[in-house]
Amino acid sequence: MLSKYTAPIRHMLCVSLCLSLGMLPAAGVAGEKFSSYVGDDGQIFFPKKFRSTMVHLGSWFVPDGEASGFHDVFTEKSSLLHYRETGEFPDGATIVKELRSAKSGNYTTGAGVSHATASLKQWFVMIKDSKERFPDSAIWGDGWGWALFKPPSNSSNVATNYKDDCLGCHIPAKSTDWVYIEAYPVLSEED
Amino acid sequence: MLSKYTAPIRHMLCVSLCLSLGMLPAAGVAGEKFSSYVGDDGQIFFPKKFRSTMVHLGSWFVPDGEASGFHDVFTEKSSLLHYRETGEFPDGATIVKELRSAKSGNYTTGAGVSHATASLKQWFVMIKDSKERFPDSAIWGDGWGWALFKPPSNSSNVATNYKDDCLGCHIPAKSTDWVYIEAYPVLSEED
Repeated sequence: MLSKYTAPIRHMLCVSLCLSLGMLPAAGVAGEKFSSYVGDDGQIFFPKKFRSTMVHLGSWFVPDGEASGFHDVFTEKSSLLHYRETGEFPDGATIVKELRSAKSGNYTTGAGVSHATASLKQWFVMIKDSKERFPDSAIWGDGWGWALFKPPSNSSNVATNYKDDCLGCHIPAKSTDWVYIEAYPVLSEED
Repeated sequence: MLSKYTAPIRHMLCVSLCLSLGMLPAAGVAGEKFSSYVGDDGQIFFPKKFRSTMVHLGSWFVPDGEASGFHDVFTEKSSLLHYRETGEFPDGATIVKELRSAKSGNYTTGAGVSHATASLKQWFVMIKDSKERFPDSAIWGDGWGWALFKPPSNSSNVATNYKDDCLGCHIPAKSTDWVYIEAYPVLSEED
């Protein structure tokens, strides 16, 4: 008889675990939102805990200039698996690009070796929107929502117009849905 | 009455889901193995699906030489969270370092920007062993199991003696349990 009463509780705990660990998509639960990081009016929120919940797509090293350092790019596991199957990011997919300063030194792997540091520079966030949900918002268009967060705060998107603030840097990648996929070989690899 | 019979099934499905997604540690289920990637005699197996199941610890860029390219380092989410709490990798923690060739070009982020490519060079794998389980194995010692896999095959560890094949490159990091933690700021960051 014990299991009759404890099993539903265990089930609830397990579902809660799945939810808290981000294993179930928010849309599947609420049946409303396509992204946990988008408000009703199209505001884009910072994807908290992305480092411990998302998968790594790839790394860039920029040696000089304003964008110098490491750029590490992340997305949801489900978005990675969807891309591998279809060649496209799914509606609601999140891409986070974290920029960190680099430090260089001589290591056993070589001279002038660079690694990422704790010095955060900025975060770029893109949210895939296949349905043109926010035609009146200047941060949505060309199939994505576009956001920029500047440390130390991640409380609000400082991009106000994606055409002015974001798109310029992505024009060379227009043919691949504005994403520089040549740097993300895991998108087309078996695990 | 229906829930009396369906709830245990739903619970089993949920536990199966958790297991298949790697959310529950193998040791917690079997009560035997401390690592899914270690055989009874201390053989170290390749951590398949690490790219889509592990978290990214950090990136290195090596400009020249045999190890040139990007080195991306991964561990389990649970190991990351344990390190953040304790300052140590937990018994059974896995670290994977994937080496890829780099390609450089001029991008909107700068000149001479490098990114990782699909050209895989090798994988280094370390398994934390706090209990000196394999005193007679030459690939175990100094608190870790040590392995090297060479693409395209990941079917067997080609390191035969960790002191000869692995430790030399880690000596500068001896004081931090042989891991170059300065390149992995997420180990000490909030999410």
